[in-house]
Amino acid sequence: MVILFQSKADDPEKWRQAFAAALPEADLRIGADSVSDVREVDYAVAWKPPKGLLKQYPNLKAILSLGAGVDHLASDPDLPTDVPVVRLIDPGLTWGMTEYVLWAVLGHHRRTREYRQLQAEHRWERLEVPLGPSRRVGVMGLGELGADAARALAAMRFEVAGWSNRRKEIDGIESFAGQDELGKFLARTEVLVNLLPLTEQTTGLLNRHTLGALPKGACLVNVARGGHLVEADLLELLGTGQIAEATLDVFAEEPLPASHPFWDHPRITITPHEAAVTPPETAAATIAENIRKMERGAAPSPIVDFSKGY
Amino acid sequence: MVILFQSKADDPEKWRQAFAAALPEADLRIGADSVSDVREVDYAVAWKPPKGLLKQYPNLKAILSLGAGVDHLASDPDLPTDVPVVRLIDPGLTWGMTEYVLWAVLGHHRRTREYRQLQAEHRWERLEVPLGPSRRVGVMGLGELGADAARALAAMRFEVAGWSNRRKEIDGIESFAGQDELGKFLARTEVLVNLLPLTEQTTGLLNRHTLGALPKGACLVNVARGGHLVEADLLELLGTGQIAEATLDVFAEEPLPASHPFWDHPRITITPHEAAVTPPETAAATIAENIRKMERGAAPSPIVDFSKGY
Ligand SMILES: NC(=O)c1ccc[n+]([C@@H]2O[C@H](COP(=O)([O-])OP(=O)(O)OC[C@H]3O[C@@H](n4cnc5c(N)ncnc54)[C@H](OP(=O)(O)O)[C@@H]3O)[C@@H](O)[C@H]2O)c1
Ligand SMILES: NC(=O)c1ccc[n+]([C@@H]2O[C@H](COP(=O)([O-])OP(=O)(O)OC[C@H]3O[C@@H](n4cnc5c(N)ncnc54)[C@H](OP(=O)(O)O)[C@@H]3O)[C@@H](O)[C@H]2O)c1
Repeated sequence: MVILFQSKADDPEKWRQAFAAALPEADLRIGADSVSDVREVDYAVAWKPPKGLLKQYPNLKAILSLGAGVDHLASDPDLPTDVPVVRLIDPGLTWGMTEYVLWAVLGHHRRTREYRQLQAEHRWERLEVPLGPSRRVGVMGLGELGADAARALAAMRFEVAGWSNRRKEIDGIESFAGQDELGKFLARTEVLVNLLPLTEQTTGLLNRHTLGALPKGACLVNVARGGHLVEADLLELLGTGQIAEATLDVFAEEPLPASHPFWDHPRITITPHEAAVTPPETAAATIAENIRKMERGAAPSPIVDFSKGY
Repeated sequence: MVILFQSKADDPEKWRQAFAAALPEADLRIGADSVSDVREVDYAVAWKPPKGLLKQYPNLKAILSLGAGVDHLASDPDLPTDVPVVRLIDPGLTWGMTEYVLWAVLGHHRRTREYRQLQAEHRWERLEVPLGPSRRVGVMGLGELGADAARALAAMRFEVAGWSNRRKEIDGIESFAGQDELGKFLARTEVLVNLLPLTEQTTGLLNRHTLGALPKGACLVNVARGGHLVEADLLELLGTGQIAEATLDVFAEEPLPASHPFWDHPRITITPHEAAVTPPETAAATIAENIRKMERGAAPSPIVDFSKGY
């Protein structure tokens, strides 16, 4: 079985080793150049493949995303439509995301940016911080990643709500569903965490109207996609104080251009799309399991529903 | 019943309100000046009272600490020895400490200080971060605060161990006990969190020898007392790279003097003894419950054992 591994963002050697352990029967080809006959490729494991690439393999049985999001595949107008596209649900990925979200939310909650500023000024001054149970955190997207992060935030005793398409029943988390309840969800949310997939419906959803519907002085943690956020609107709302601080891991253009105004903004924390890096150690096993399922005629999971866009 | 409330660090008005709600039958006196007849004081609720003050009240039934630590009382050579000294175990205090410890450990784990530096240089660069389960965190002191923090760290999937006097059985946490096992505990600990009480045995315990026994590049989170740490030794070990980073909430001298070298150290994060501020909302009720117990002849808890020093 031949697997094409196509990613510019990941270290191929680590993946080669991880696949050798998880799926020794596979013949792993790193990059399209390592395929001499397009007919031999059975599976494509991909992150941001060049547009038009994947349609070239006539015998492809499935496309397996190297990330939780599939917008990097959906954006290919020539993406094959006759094979399943499989999203990545992986424990290592989820752990990483939840770590990041906890760190970012705790940082906003505990006013650590302001404490850093006081340190720079050699000032010893205690700032008011409310008790955890009176801090209202809201998570947009209660899927694999959003639900795990929301649970961890609730375990830290925050008052947590989530927003998703369908209503959820998760212990200790208030569920808001659909466009109709977005306003209520935003109005009660002091720290907003975005973990939506990027789809037609969610593109530009974080804008002056929605961010303006948060209580004044709210904080934003965007760990989903840059396309969710209207960056100019965020700058404006940081300017008015409507948004107090933001932690951003994803951007409209990545790498974030060196001249982008976000870099030097005193109330924006930037990380380079590293909230949840797909770990070969765990993800090769997850992907191998899906491939084995398909080899024995079973369906992989989860298969992307392109009618919903995620 | 007359209660003397003695603290320079806390907002008396908040406490007055919280006690009015939690213990309406009490006559709360804020500060020693508000007591005209020393014989009328039944209970002292105190944080860092002036030395010699508490011995002045002949009818004192108990001294209730406003903080989890009692070194601020033990250091009074004239502390009355014929009344119980009650430590504070309070949910709001524990929540605050666990939030802080999680934030600090996640920050070291995820290399957020280095990311902040990269942001300052407008550099988009991913740093290697191990998976949570392969990050070894060690908590010194597995009492009220240490055990809760250790549990929360284990729930975040870190590999957690604790060190205490007596061996503990806590799910998912490896327990090391006593001086004999300190070396083994340190040798396996990449991020060290100190939550010991300050006693004769633990004063200066974080020094060049113990910190030198950590793996090279370890991180330190000191949230217990400044007296645990030999500050000059930390500076030296930060210099050699033995210690990579430290997050410090407590200091030998507080407020930390403006000229102290810690303020400007690029790998030290400073907060002003605010990891777990005693919240009147929860703590007045906790203290009220102990006072009510004593009023009906029962023992308060926990009573400090001054033979152990905590
Ligand atoms: N920064 C990083 O390093 C990084 C790493 C991994 C992933 N991510 C991002 O995280 C996203 C989420 O991943 P996941 O695995 O949690 O996805 P998922 O399991 O598909 O969950 C998506 C969630 O969003 C909700 N949703 C989708 N469209 C919506 C809409 N229009 N209105 C309201 N709710 C909507 C879904 O609602 P239902 O449950 O009702 O369907 C679901 O709860 C990925 O798509 C990716 O963009 C970022
Ligand atoms: N920074 C802040 O804002 C802040 C706020 C609150 C408290 N604190 C600090 O946190 C400390 C801990 O509070 P706590 O309520 O968790 O105290 P605690 O319940 O009394 O727990 C103390 C722990 O330390 C262990 N221990 C004591 N002496 C030891 C020794 N010589 N060797 C090994 N282990 C030893 C004890 O072991 P055993 O269980 O075997 O007895 C116990 O596990 C306080 O004393 C205070 O200094 C700081």
